[in-house]
Amino acid sequence: MNAHHRHDAAPALRREDADSVATLTLDRPQSRNPLSEAMLAALSDAFTAIATDRTIKAVVLAAEGPVFSAGHDLKEMSAHRADSDRGRAYFTEILGRCSKVMQQISALPQPVIAAVEGTATAAGCQLVASCDLAVAGSNAKFCTPGVHIGLFCSTPMVALTRNLSAKHAMEMLLLGEMVPAEEAARMGLINRVVTAGDALAEARRLAAVIASKSPATIRIGKRAFYEQREMGLAAAYDHASAVMVDNMLARDAEEGIGAFVEKRAPVWEG
Amino acid sequence: MNAHHRHDAAPALRREDADSVATLTLDRPQSRNPLSEAMLAALSDAFTAIATDRTIKAVVLAAEGPVFSAGHDLKEMSAHRADSDRGRAYFTEILGRCSKVMQQISALPQPVIAAVEGTATAAGCQLVASCDLAVAGSNAKFCTPGVHIGLFCSTPMVALTRNLSAKHAMEMLLLGEMVPAEEAARMGLINRVVTAGDALAEARRLAAVIASKSPATIRIGKRAFYEQREMGLAAAYDHASAVMVDNMLARDAEEGIGAFVEKRAPVWEG
Amino acid sequence: MNAHHRHDAAPALRREDADSVATLTLDRPQSRNPLSEAMLAALSDAFTAIATDRTIKAVVLAAEGPVFSAGHDLKEMSAHRADSDRGRAYFTEILGRCSKVMQQISALPQPVIAAVEGTATAAGCQLVASCDLAVAGSNAKFCTPGVHIGLFCSTPMVALTRNLSAKHAMEMLLLGEMVPAEEAARMGLINRVVTAGDALAEARRLAAVIASKSPATIRIGKRAFYEQREMGLAAAYDHASAVMVDNMLARDAEEGIGAFVEKRAPVWEG
Repeated sequence: MNAHHRHDAAPALRREDADSVATLTLDRPQSRNPLSEAMLAALSDAFTAIATDRTIKAVVLAAEGPVFSAGHDLKEMSAHRADSDRGRAYFTEILGRCSKVMQQISALPQPVIAAVEGTATAAGCQLVASCDLAVAGSNAKFCTPGVHIGLFCSTPMVALTRNLSAKHAMEMLLLGEMVPAEEAARMGLINRVVTAGDALAEARRLAAVIASKSPATIRIGKRAFYEQREMGLAAAYDHASAVMVDNMLARDAEEGIGAFVEKRAPVWEG
Repeated sequence: MNAHHRHDAAPALRREDADSVATLTLDRPQSRNPLSEAMLAALSDAFTAIATDRTIKAVVLAAEGPVFSAGHDLKEMSAHRADSDRGRAYFTEILGRCSKVMQQISALPQPVIAAVEGTATAAGCQLVASCDLAVAGSNAKFCTPGVHIGLFCSTPMVALTRNLSAKHAMEMLLLGEMVPAEEAARMGLINRVVTAGDALAEARRLAAVIASKSPATIRIGKRAFYEQREMGLAAAYDHASAVMVDNMLARDAEEGIGAFVEKRAPVWEG
Repeated sequence: MNAHHRHDAAPALRREDADSVATLTLDRPQSRNPLSEAMLAALSDAFTAIATDRTIKAVVLAAEGPVFSAGHDLKEMSAHRADSDRGRAYFTEILGRCSKVMQQISALPQPVIAAVEGTATAAGCQLVASCDLAVAGSNAKFCTPGVHIGLFCSTPMVALTRNLSAKHAMEMLLLGEMVPAEEAARMGLINRVVTAGDALAEARRLAAVIASKSPATIRIGKRAFYEQREMGLAAAYDHASAVMVDNMLARDAEEGIGAFVEKRAPVWEG
């Protein structure tokens, strides 16, 4: 067994928990952290586990090596062109899994913060766009390069167009050019740019801020965020008002407002 | 009766009309201009009155004191925890009223321009986001701090997400940090930043520009703005085209186009 | 016949094809390139022809003279006030045609890039907003000035609100003020600003980049872009995933991925 195989025996995704924050690290740097079958399964399993893990209040998504993620594993996909259906069933399966992982992020009770160094391309860029928040080192770059290989980044487009203005999203998709971190921040793809190498620290700082809040409250709010934004204005207000009434009656709002009035620190239940 | 009580006897909301512009001023500076029962009722009544007041062509929404508005009146709300239903009926009522006031702004025939100095937080920030236009002094700050007290800013979120990109809105909601005026302008929460203390003057300048236009035309356009943006592209074009045909046949378009062709000033009917 | 009439005998819209890119040039500079009956018919015919023209891989939309386009032809429209129905049937017809032309741009298989020098106002501004990409010379200006003549820019609003944040769109529509190119870029109305006079060259440079890609892939992606963005998140992912499976099975993706793996230049089929 050579070094490469030994490496592959290690999990594709590392999870480290500290101070109520789970850090998930894509750990296939030699193959540019592809969203392979193994990586998608590991991400899906991790999100499923974290969803019911009350010890975790926020998630940081990072990556090992100079490439955050290069997106789908083209070699793995191309191998299925030899299938009797030319790969249709496999492509349907793998793209469905990938779309499910992206939606697991929005559905996760805890906020997910991407910490990007290096390049995030194709479905790797989609992964960043799908996170609730994203910070990047100043050398990070973003790209949806599918047009270069005849495969338009149609699923990354779903996440891009829900973050960027139409012309900015179209520019990334049609030209497939690298977008530097500062421009990505201006476009709304990421929240902020920090010194190269500091993205993980900054993401953890934001995660710590979030972890100091009531997890029950964050859970209520994050869910309502994605629900209400697909509604018309009146329906959104009806929904958000009902959510807020329930939130007012929950234990942590009573504690939080009481603590605020009494000028003491709140003690959250979770 | 002490100074505080004497003050409370004055209306929570002042209205001053001049040059076809109504200026509404939140006038509870000592209690940080909360959106209390009294304030919501005063705002609702003012918008109802202005809606049919043909002498008013634009509205400026300002505030007295160093805080534009701190949002809901937590003391007033907390008092209802002693109700037999722990406040559910009251919270439902007050949040419903608040959401109605926000929607009265979009539904008002006249444009509403927020003039913000100081801090606008929680439902106070929502009030600014709900206005058609907003200008702020350079020291103004914006914040949705509900997470600090266990009560996610779910209803402010409805207005925020219809103005800001997803990641910017999520950042404000999850972190609850103060956003300076310049950053709020970059994010799209407000239109422009002026020298501290000049927000009211600038809002009135914009209101005067709007007041010089045909009120019937502004009314038609503002309504169509909020209607069409909840539709798909084809339906939006069908609707906007029908609106524009009616607008062409209205008296003020005939006058305006005639005046333009004849190089004279138009005289609007209203 | 005077110079003006001689000029009018020339087509309102010039088409020049080179290197798989069609450049359409609005060519009524003396009347400020209005979206007259003739111009709308010429644009509609051009887009219809290009839609099935496999030799064309991208379209540049430019204009002759100091005004990109001043929008509807008010004289032509006003003449129909003498009709027995005061123009209702005509206005309905012309606005319907205009809205159809704007939607032909989104529906066109090939990307359309606006190259703007000078001013683009009213439906002329809408035309820019409706293109997939837009570049402008540094002296270009954008405006929706309908409020000045009693005719709110309600149909331009449909394109504006699908590109700009709510407050920015409302500001353009309510005030009708000129927006300089740099500000238009910040707002998301255009992609980038170049040296005055260089917009056409830059648009052609972008068109050449797009023309070097697989036209079948661009076609698939552009259509999915406009389809998915009107859907909720889950439906958008289902749709985009199905689109991407079909794209994977198309000849150009097999060629493109194969070429990428083999480190050679792909040869697109179209």
